[in-house]
Amino acid sequence: MKKWDVFELKLKGKTDGNPFTDYEICGEFSNENEAKTVSGFYDGGGIYRIRFMPSFEGEYNYKIYGSFSDKTVTGSFDVSGADGCGPIHAEDTAFEYADGTPYYSVGTTCYAWTCQPQELREQTIETLKNSSFNKLRFCIFPKHYDYNYRDPVMFPYEGTPVDNSGIDKFSFSDYKPDNAENKWDFSRFNTEYFRVIDGCVEALRRLNIEADIILFHPYDRWGFSKMPCWADELYLKYMTARYSAYSNVWWSRANEYDLCGYKAADDWEHYAQLVTKKDPYGHLISIHNCVKLYDFSRDWVTHCSIQRQTGDKELDFIPSWLEKYKKPVVIDEMCYEGNIEQDWGNISAEEMLRRMWKVYILGGHPGHSECYFGKDIWWSHGGRLYGESYKRFGFLHRIMTECGSLHTVGYMESENHDGSIRLRYFGEHRPAFITMKLGDARYRIEVIDTWSMTVDDRGSFSGNVKIVMPQRSGMTVRMRKE
Amino acid sequence: MKKWDVFELKLKGKTDGNPFTDYEICGEFSNENEAKTVSGFYDGGGIYRIRFMPSFEGEYNYKIYGSFSDKTVTGSFDVSGADGCGPIHAEDTAFEYADGTPYYSVGTTCYAWTCQPQELREQTIETLKNSSFNKLRFCIFPKHYDYNYRDPVMFPYEGTPVDNSGIDKFSFSDYKPDNAENKWDFSRFNTEYFRVIDGCVEALRRLNIEADIILFHPYDRWGFSKMPCWADELYLKYMTARYSAYSNVWWSRANEYDLCGYKAADDWEHYAQLVTKKDPYGHLISIHNCVKLYDFSRDWVTHCSIQRQTGDKELDFIPSWLEKYKKPVVIDEMCYEGNIEQDWGNISAEEMLRRMWKVYILGGHPGHSECYFGKDIWWSHGGRLYGESYKRFGFLHRIMTECGSLHTVGYMESENHDGSIRLRYFGEHRPAFITMKLGDARYRIEVIDTWSMTVDDRGSFSGNVKIVMPQRSGMTVRMRKE
Repeated sequence: MKKWDVFELKLKGKTDGNPFTDYEICGEFSNENEAKTVSGFYDGGGIYRIRFMPSFEGEYNYKIYGSFSDKTVTGSFDVSGADGCGPIHAEDTAFEYADGTPYYSVGTTCYAWTCQPQELREQTIETLKNSSFNKLRFCIFPKHYDYNYRDPVMFPYEGTPVDNSGIDKFSFSDYKPDNAENKWDFSRFNTEYFRVIDGCVEALRRLNIEADIILFHPYDRWGFSKMPCWADELYLKYMTARYSAYSNVWWSRANEYDLCGYKAADDWEHYAQLVTKKDPYGHLISIHNCVKLYDFSRDWVTHCSIQRQTGDKELDFIPSWLEKYKKPVVIDEMCYEGNIEQDWGNISAEEMLRRMWKVYILGGHPGHSECYFGKDIWWSHGGRLYGESYKRFGFLHRIMTECGSLHTVGYMESENHDGSIRLRYFGEHRPAFITMKLGDARYRIEVIDTWSMTVDDRGSFSGNVKIVMPQRSGMTVRMRKE
Repeated sequence: MKKWDVFELKLKGKTDGNPFTDYEICGEFSNENEAKTVSGFYDGGGIYRIRFMPSFEGEYNYKIYGSFSDKTVTGSFDVSGADGCGPIHAEDTAFEYADGTPYYSVGTTCYAWTCQPQELREQTIETLKNSSFNKLRFCIFPKHYDYNYRDPVMFPYEGTPVDNSGIDKFSFSDYKPDNAENKWDFSRFNTEYFRVIDGCVEALRRLNIEADIILFHPYDRWGFSKMPCWADELYLKYMTARYSAYSNVWWSRANEYDLCGYKAADDWEHYAQLVTKKDPYGHLISIHNCVKLYDFSRDWVTHCSIQRQTGDKELDFIPSWLEKYKKPVVIDEMCYEGNIEQDWGNISAEEMLRRMWKVYILGGHPGHSECYFGKDIWWSHGGRLYGESYKRFGFLHRIMTECGSLHTVGYMESENHDGSIRLRYFGEHRPAFITMKLGDARYRIEVIDTWSMTVDDRGSFSGNVKIVMPQRSGMTVRMRKE
């Protein structure tokens, strides 16, 4: 057992009535540095599980109790040094792992990947393993939307879905659920559905990829977006009990909350309080918009999670969002590379890469996805990547790691925290040369080609300098104080 | 003599004292449809000139009088049918020539071309002749700025300029005028300087290119941006007397008025009233900004003249400007194609073309220029064009003429006045196909490649349609009702 790994106990318990609602299972975990009380959950077949993430090394004692069983279980286990860096938290406008390592997010999105067949899920993991992404956004509930008309392999509740036959899967986006009824028991989870998600979250954890879990979303024909309040609450308690012990979990309260017609403004606040209260580790939590940004100044919001699509114009607001909210800004959606019909999914690799760099230069954390038309589309199903931008994100992340978090000092010009490194990103601008007045200070100047992934060291300079530039788009100049 | 041509009388007059300020010359021109009183001007060497633009066919009578001479001169001339379409005016948010022909502006800028040697000016005219531009912005006063440190071939006033030796012409933009004195007599124009401009304006007129004359600008080491008020007024009276009779004249009260530190807000209003009062033909008049837009709702403003540079993000405001001001919107500056150091002059041909189309689709009139580093730069000196975007403007203008003025009906989707033509511009988006629901109406659908300049007629459709698209940037789809 290592620090920040998942400690799990599997216990038999009562099965009379409805074990999802009728019984509780609670655990107290303590060592000399911390003491936490956590909830367990029912996992079907008479099995209850309780998960705990230790944040310290050394011996832990635990006591498991609750109405699920007439017995109290106690025990202890040893925790040794960590393999990973631990869960991430926000430090002012930056992210940091628990061990102090800075985290620079290079995200992607596969909304419905956990609902796909096992083979496809495995391919997704394989693709991620060979990529440089360190965050993946995905939904818990299945997705109903263009290119997403096939049923998920399973459903999250016991019951039967609306009949799906006769839907033209790759047709116009005009499908409206008919009156055929979904028949769900929202008080009984399909535990197999969640065991699949357990595997997905754990696989991501092993790859050091943050699991940005989207709790609600509006793209639904099965009724999961309009459950009664008690069912929403039961679901959130189940989710926090089941997943809080994974160090890589982030809570995204919604995808496009402003399109979730069945939830009122107060509901979001209420559900946020619930998640925050039930998550013993204080995982990152935010909420993603379609058009209207959520009020990120709320106490429970740890970072901004933002979608911007019309052109890239609104990315320029990143510095003002940083200033306003004093929290990290994650741009999860700013159009995706691809060739599908919808404008949000058909920009070129060059344009995707340009926006990724732009977000970093402006002080934010960029997010990608890919929508090449075909049987499976990465943005929703996962599977394979066909584009060209993602191949260049490892290089972007390397530069992020070398330079650190940035704040803007001019248009498309940024500095790191102590001003020892300055980056100027040229984007669509292609000067034949640039000039700089360095004064007495001495700088190493490098010309970085974000597409070709080269760093051209031009040497050490002071005074007035003229640097000949490649006349191509997507160049960055890095100046390092010597 | 043809309608809308320049009728000119050259008369000898008094030379005692200062003929620029001591005498007046006035002309009354009338035929059965109009009667106008216009001012003449002194052109040096004892010669006074008076110019008139007839707006009707038939016989005109004139009477020239004033303190410049003890004699009154009368006469008449015949005016036959026009060669051109006459001066342009604004009709709601569109432009129209006097004969009713719509005008779709495809502009360019050569700020200081009239100050260049004759050979270069002739080359500029030759370049324009082989281009599709129908508007040229330029300054009357010489320009002092990066790449513009050489003296003009002449100066607009009698006197001597500040010593210009020792200026590094293509160096940093840190040159500040020293204390060496400019010695000008602002009451005595250098008439040779203005005769050169006469030739330039006339050459443009013959090419059906509007002369968008910039009356003031801030880039100055000679003091023309900070003349006393009486000198500004004398200059504006001289300009209107000299150039109002050219049908192709537009008045641009300033380039970057908000950087003209020596003029107060009231000055601009005062000078506008003066120009409007002294111009007998009501030529188009506006004022160009650097950052802060002028208040285009002022009565005297005939159209919006706008600079936007940071990305292309603010172009999206065009529909709201049209709505707010109910006047045509001309985007004179939105970065230029080129490779110079400054970001406003180094975007690619593809990006320049994209912005030109975007402005048209959004209901505005786009403006180009070009800044390829070299001895002469089109943006300021004129000369040759080296880029790739301008070659595609004839095609853009053809589409403008075929479709007419547009108003937006969706994001990057616009209709002409009666809804019979709809254009959807894809810019950086490259869908593999698009779908449309045409209902019972029948449309001809064409896929327009703005870069390759092809119009691919896909046929006539109604109902639900799927159109396969080239997976390239810069595509437009045109739907014409049949």
